[in-house]
Amino acid sequence: MSRYLLKLSYDGTAYHGWQIQPNGITVQQVICDSLKKMLGDDIPVTGCSRTDAGVHAREFCCHIDTKLDLPKNAFLKGLNSVLPDDIKVTDCKAVSDDFHARYSCKGKRYSYCFYFGKPDPFAERYALRLEKKPDLTLMNKFCKTIIGKHDFYAFSSSKRTVTDTVRTVTECDIIEKGDKIYLKIAADGFLYNMVRIIAGTALAVGEGRLPCDCAIKMFESKDRALGGETLPAKALFLEEVFY
Amino acid sequence: MSRYLLKLSYDGTAYHGWQIQPNGITVQQVICDSLKKMLGDDIPVTGCSRTDAGVHAREFCCHIDTKLDLPKNAFLKGLNSVLPDDIKVTDCKAVSDDFHARYSCKGKRYSYCFYFGKPDPFAERYALRLEKKPDLTLMNKFCKTIIGKHDFYAFSSSKRTVTDTVRTVTECDIIEKGDKIYLKIAADGFLYNMVRIIAGTALAVGEGRLPCDCAIKMFESKDRALGGETLPAKALFLEEVFY
Repeated sequence: MSRYLLKLSYDGTAYHGWQIQPNGITVQQVICDSLKKMLGDDIPVTGCSRTDAGVHAREFCCHIDTKLDLPKNAFLKGLNSVLPDDIKVTDCKAVSDDFHARYSCKGKRYSYCFYFGKPDPFAERYALRLEKKPDLTLMNKFCKTIIGKHDFYAFSSSKRTVTDTVRTVTECDIIEKGDKIYLKIAADGFLYNMVRIIAGTALAVGEGRLPCDCAIKMFESKDRALGGETLPAKALFLEEVFY
Repeated sequence: MSRYLLKLSYDGTAYHGWQIQPNGITVQQVICDSLKKMLGDDIPVTGCSRTDAGVHAREFCCHIDTKLDLPKNAFLKGLNSVLPDDIKVTDCKAVSDDFHARYSCKGKRYSYCFYFGKPDPFAERYALRLEKKPDLTLMNKFCKTIIGKHDFYAFSSSKRTVTDTVRTVTECDIIEKGDKIYLKIAADGFLYNMVRIIAGTALAVGEGRLPCDCAIKMFESKDRALGGETLPAKALFLEEVFY
């Protein structure tokens, strides 16, 4: 058996997230079905994390084990020819047997995208529209308080499945590009809905509805109610997975 | 009764084109339904042209007649709040009674988008992927032969509904931006599938499969078979409507 790391990119709009589930079509399901169509075998696929319904990935990693030898270019071309337009495989490389897409992962980077200005159906698919441009200086001040090792309990949904809620955020920035604003965040791991709650809290700060230092109180009190809302999935992108 | 010109922008992926038809949901249908939901009235909507299933519009124009006075900002905000994410209204202005979205139209500009490089699900939705970059100098030479007043019979589908197939192309260019290539074309009018056939012929020229001057023979012979293929709708955008 050989283990391969596959890198994917997908538009998550049509999918109920990554993980196979009985109530809707998922990205993992499509990958499994496509591998079977191409290689004729049931090949288990292990992802680097779950992603929520509607979340996109510019880079998502998974590993597969197969007895077949996969010649990189022919494999990529073949798999992409059976995959739908909204899911593409961008890389495939042999890895050692002890590599694990989830457990070997050292961290990830996400981005959350806002746009302001006229309603635009092309931006609307991948970004959250704001009536007015928020105060980016305030948002950046908030972002600085997020960086570091903290208990992110108050920045996660009650549906969280883990008990250890301490994570280390290594990067948290606001970047403006044209009429778009990106919150970029990297950490050693993320809790359920963590980026969407951090983005919602950053937005509330930028709109003057919450103080810049609200995160500090949230770390201490573990009180979810002190943060902003959980923003929609459609503007969230998994950007990079670190090993 | 007052007449209003509405400007729309839409992602056509989910729609069977502009015009209301029995076999699928169309953009016109959604606009009519949304106006009724907002204003409580059946308001006829007249578009500047049909667009094919799957074609997008960064600007599409239509007119409506209503007894109501439409205060611009409140009307735009209200209509956008009932429209789906993939159709947005961007402008509304009162016009004279003799203005007609279709018959007053003096021309339109379209673009067709190619991309080369790795398969990318976000590009894939709005562009046609090419394995290799075509020769842009050859494509531009072909484009120059398209400009002017010609009989575009050979650049239209057999499903055409008009008998006069002479049109005047005022602009036809190839523009490169990053890993994307745009064919931009403006004319006083377009025949059925005309841009998709011109784009397919330009591509065949850029890939060395057809000679640069093939359009000249196509104008003379009216022979569709001398051109390139009709490219997919997903990469075609109506960019601007001239009055």
